[in-house]
Parts: sequence; structure tokens; C-alpha cells
Amino acid sequence: MAQNSLALDTALAYHRAWTNHAFEHAMTYIPDDIVCDAPAGRLEGAEAFRGFMGPFTQILISSRLIAAFGDDRTAVLMYDTETVPVHSAPGAECLTVQDGRITHMRIIFDRSPFDAARKPGPQTE
Amino acid sequence: MAQNSLALDTALAYHRAWTNHAFEHAMTYIPDDIVCDAPAGRLEGAEAFRGFMGPFTQILISSRLIAAFGDDRTAVLMYDTETVPVHSAPGAECLTVQDGRITHMRIIFDRSPFDAARKPGPQTE
Repeated sequence: MAQNSLALDTALAYHRAWTNHAFEHAMTYIPDDIVCDAPAGRLEGAEAFRGFMGPFTQILISSRLIAAFGDDRTAVLMYDTETVPVHSAPGAECLTVQDGRITHMRIIFDRSPFDAARKPGPQTE
Repeated sequence: MAQNSLALDTALAYHRAWTNHAFEHAMTYIPDDIVCDAPAGRLEGAEAFRGFMGPFTQILISSRLIAAFGDDRTAVLMYDTETVPVHSAPGAECLTVQDGRITHMRIIFDRSPFDAARKPGPQTE
């Protein structure tokens, strides 16, 4: 499913790094002024991004790439993840790449099962 | 951002239909035996799919395509939507296409703001 493109190469290098517990290497693809639109809102800057993605990589058990496409400037990845609190937590990212680094990322995933896992007591849904 | 491909042509035709309030036309791209992996679980068959997407198109105000890629068999779309209960509800779809119809769809979106909008009383998040 993967095609070769400049943006996709960077996106996949970043993806391989964080899904293989090499988060510091993944962060080398993240410039200081990254803008990331995540489900909870906009994150501005590498430190805000680190505070979002770093904890997620700590609960990651495994991942599987579902689709990967891109052109010279933009890549889209879809993947499934298995995490400690949530068995299947798929995500999708649209990444804008300039000079081998990710200047903008939109990430979509379902927060509901993570919210539910944080709630104390039996789930009543 | 869009590239021409057989799967992408079908994905975009389906997308244009449901985002333009032509849901019955959108359903012509959905075979009886579609399998759709949605945030709440797997939906099997066109009627289950209709019960999922139909109500969503009823609360749709507007949409904007963010990215669209594909090859002969697979397409990935990312888009933002404005809905009655949720101002910005982005989604991503990975669609498998055979003979001009969508045989499998994985759709990712954040259910949290929809859950929150359904709760009675003031939001305390």
C-alpha cells in the first residue's frame, strides 16, 4: 500500500521510530515549531508535542500499519495500536513535511475508550 | 493533494455524495456485504452501515476534505466536518474498493465530543 514520496519517507521514518520505542529518534523529525492538531486541541511546539506523544509511547504494546500514502509535501498514515488500557486504538495522521521534518500533523483517534479506561469502578456503557 | 486512482475515484464519489446530502446516492457505492470497522465496533452489511452513517449525515452542516490518496485497490480520506452537536469533528477513512464499490471501510473519529454533547446538564470537563 505504501508509495514512495519525499513526505511519506519522512512520515514512515517517524512512525517506525515511535512505534519501535525509539521516541527520541522519532523526535528528531519534529521541529521546534511543529503545530499538531490533536483530538483535545492544538499543540504548538516540540515540547507540547512531546508531552502528548511521549506518554502514549509508554503505553504502546504493538502497532500495525494499515495504509500509507503521500506526495512531495503531504503524507497520510493509518495504523492500529494495541495499548495497555485499550486493546485496539487505531489512529490516522496527516503530516505536512518540509526539509525532512514534520511541520504540521493532524492526528485523529477515538478518545472514548481511553476516557472509559480511566474511570473508576465498573463500566456501565 | 488528490491523486487519480481507481479506488480514489470511487472513494471521492462516495464522499462527495454523503457530504452533499445525497446519502441515497452515496449508498449506491455500498454493497450489501460491506464490512465497516467503526469506533464502536464492526458493522456488517449495508443496512447496519446505513444505520451508522445515515444519522450522521442528518447532523452534518459542512465538511472540508483535508487529504485524499489512493491506489488501484485502497483509498484514504481525511476530512473535517462541522456538525450540529460538535463544531469540528474530523474523520479518516481507509476504503477498500472492488469494481467501483466499497467492500471494506475503516473509519476513525473521536467519539468523545459527541458523548459529551449527549450528556445532560453543564459540562464539567
